[in-house]
Amino acid sequence: MTNQQKPSKLSSLYINCTLKKSPARSHTEGLINTSIEIMEQQGVVTNLIRAVDLNIQPSVDPDFTDDDWQDLYEKIKSSDILVIGTPIWLGEKSSVAVKIMERLYAHSAETNEAGQYIYYNKVGGVLITGNEDGGKHVARDVLYGLSHIGFTIPPQADSYWVGEAGPGPSYLDAGQQNEFTIRNTSIMTWNLIHLASQFKLNPIPAKGNVVQD
Amino acid sequence: MTNQQKPSKLSSLYINCTLKKSPARSHTEGLINTSIEIMEQQGVVTNLIRAVDLNIQPSVDPDFTDDDWQDLYEKIKSSDILVIGTPIWLGEKSSVAVKIMERLYAHSAETNEAGQYIYYNKVGGVLITGNEDGGKHVARDVLYGLSHIGFTIPPQADSYWVGEAGPGPSYLDAGQQNEFTIRNTSIMTWNLIHLASQFKLNPIPAKGNVVQD
Amino acid sequence: MTNQQKPSKLSSLYINCTLKKSPARSHTEGLINTSIEIMEQQGVVTNLIRAVDLNIQPSVDPDFTDDDWQDLYEKIKSSDILVIGTPIWLGEKSSVAVKIMERLYAHSAETNEAGQYIYYNKVGGVLITGNEDGGKHVARDVLYGLSHIGFTIPPQADSYWVGEAGPGPSYLDAGQQNEFTIRNTSIMTWNLIHLASQFKLNPIPAKGNVVQD
Amino acid sequence: MTNQQKPSKLSSLYINCTLKKSPARSHTEGLINTSIEIMEQQGVVTNLIRAVDLNIQPSVDPDFTDDDWQDLYEKIKSSDILVIGTPIWLGEKSSVAVKIMERLYAHSAETNEAGQYIYYNKVGGVLITGNEDGGKHVARDVLYGLSHIGFTIPPQADSYWVGEAGPGPSYLDAGQQNEFTIRNTSIMTWNLIHLASQFKLNPIPAKGNVVQD
Repeated sequence: MTNQQKPSKLSSLYINCTLKKSPARSHTEGLINTSIEIMEQQGVVTNLIRAVDLNIQPSVDPDFTDDDWQDLYEKIKSSDILVIGTPIWLGEKSSVAVKIMERLYAHSAETNEAGQYIYYNKVGGVLITGNEDGGKHVARDVLYGLSHIGFTIPPQADSYWVGEAGPGPSYLDAGQQNEFTIRNTSIMTWNLIHLASQFKLNPIPAKGNVVQD
Repeated sequence: MTNQQKPSKLSSLYINCTLKKSPARSHTEGLINTSIEIMEQQGVVTNLIRAVDLNIQPSVDPDFTDDDWQDLYEKIKSSDILVIGTPIWLGEKSSVAVKIMERLYAHSAETNEAGQYIYYNKVGGVLITGNEDGGKHVARDVLYGLSHIGFTIPPQADSYWVGEAGPGPSYLDAGQQNEFTIRNTSIMTWNLIHLASQFKLNPIPAKGNVVQD
Repeated sequence: MTNQQKPSKLSSLYINCTLKKSPARSHTEGLINTSIEIMEQQGVVTNLIRAVDLNIQPSVDPDFTDDDWQDLYEKIKSSDILVIGTPIWLGEKSSVAVKIMERLYAHSAETNEAGQYIYYNKVGGVLITGNEDGGKHVARDVLYGLSHIGFTIPPQADSYWVGEAGPGPSYLDAGQQNEFTIRNTSIMTWNLIHLASQFKLNPIPAKGNVVQD
Repeated sequence: MTNQQKPSKLSSLYINCTLKKSPARSHTEGLINTSIEIMEQQGVVTNLIRAVDLNIQPSVDPDFTDDDWQDLYEKIKSSDILVIGTPIWLGEKSSVAVKIMERLYAHSAETNEAGQYIYYNKVGGVLITGNEDGGKHVARDVLYGLSHIGFTIPPQADSYWVGEAGPGPSYLDAGQQNEFTIRNTSIMTWNLIHLASQFKLNPIPAKGNVVQD
């Protein structure tokens, strides 16, 4: 299976949904970079966008063009792998992440050349940082949203870092030494590459899942 | 890709997590049967278990053998496709479904011959009925649980039926005529077959996702 | 208990978190108006804000003053009752609602004169509309967020309308005739009034819940 | 307000939803005992039940009498305060906790002498332990379930302990020294007492929230 060993044409997009505009330090970006490093070592093209730096309005209208979304959507459509990165606030994903999910959802009735929904043959994952609690809650919401609109979710496609209950240091300040987080980020990244590679070679058959209007 | 057209060796297991013992009528089973029918037309071996008919105790101990779980676990291990069926109570999956998830989780540190976690190369889906509201909430919890322990989640791997807000008829009484539910059940079933077929031919490579103790 | 019969000094604030700017029709506003009507009949002062009409940036910084939030926060502080109204997208509350929750959270370390957290003695509720599924999921997230930062949640403090699974008319188009939704909206509204009235007369004692820095 | 200072007639019930039967050590019980101690110091009658020691079957039928539930339900009805204690598995509350919620829900159409739903004038809280992540997710589900069937949720009615992301010691092994958890458990306990005391003196008025069949 040489396709797994040389996924040179694969392309990935990471959308960092921190609330803080550049150049403010983002803990979530720290975790994202760990995954990006593995992608690049495997020859996957990587792109990293900090959503809050762009003008993206809340909307579920696919024809809304009065902001920077359509450019980002083009990047999403040309990527094989999409990873949502988000901090945790009140135990939940950021409002920026929800806004991105809404805009993704806006296009979910569009189809690819095979007549399947537009996100078919793309794979999705999620990276999360918070100073305490909420990783799995955020992961379930993001991964479900992606799955429901057509992404495939590889095994163990989430990784997070959170500290012990209560106030405490955030990810970068804590030193990024958590073995569980390091390991899960690596597994997630590899499984995203594996499934995206397989879909590149063998797309999901257009049978039983084609949109009929 | 003849593997998609003749998935004759694929095996699927549906676990109905209704609270009602046989032979009581289960609305969830009604929805499950719609999916089973498609599987059988495609030559997939199907098995349907009503969990509440078995003696399954709450536990997260993989060595707990004092009930019927180990037999069910053998069936799960020998299946390529697992579908959890559940009713909705208070907007959530049933306690029986949670018990099954706990027992699945108990074995999540076990590995396959390739050194990956035991549920790798299996695909998961969820079927849900309620008389009103809660479908997506249940779907996100079940699909995330499966994903987190190693299952792959194909595109749109959930289907549900719920009525309008408030008291009203349940699925079978409502007549099973909802086109959205029929369509989503079909898409889910086909995508489970497609991905299970692909993994049969091309398992997820054992690279970057192998357990090292 | 004349205080329950004459809550004339009570003040309520409804924040509509629709994605659509005024004057676009908002189904959620339709449901909100049902609750407002009851409040006004009971002599409660009501205020309705459509958050997306204001310039509110995503932030968890209490000192962020570069937008319209601080004015809204003053309104929140002077209200006894806060009701979050939100549509459902992908089974979740809107990104606008999450943004409001983040900004509320930003101030959660502030205290009242008694030394309790700032939202003590305020009560919270939630009103939700979607064309199908997601009411309880949204309710649990919003009510938990409010509770966690100091609001009291009266009995049955949520009301929603959703249609049968799948595409279909939204709340106003469906005719607002759902008895379950009408009844729950009324119960929620009355219980908000009852508890806010009680706290007006008998605030939560400042014992065991006072912040010590 | 002497009622707050001498809530001598108040009664509380803690239901520990650990998966482990007595006399196995329960970390959740360790946290529960911290709250019970405060209750007893304030003269509140306390009861602690480990649900898994009883024979409680999954059911949403209020007339199901073939197990130990009806005795437990009598205890619930005679308590002013109900606290659900639960461990976290896969980021969720235990199957035992869900079973208890289902049985509570089964009676949610019953009414008190004033014609309100049966759980009115009772207050609810939740205590959670896990070795990592999931506290807020569990809290939102339990508190919402209680609220939706008629309990009042005081401010900050949840407390949890979880460790840093990944495998690690459980609550009792970690030493119970987490100041955040200690403080939140205390605040929760006091607020449960405060609101239960207030409802003892001034029940929620039976206006606008009375069941009409």
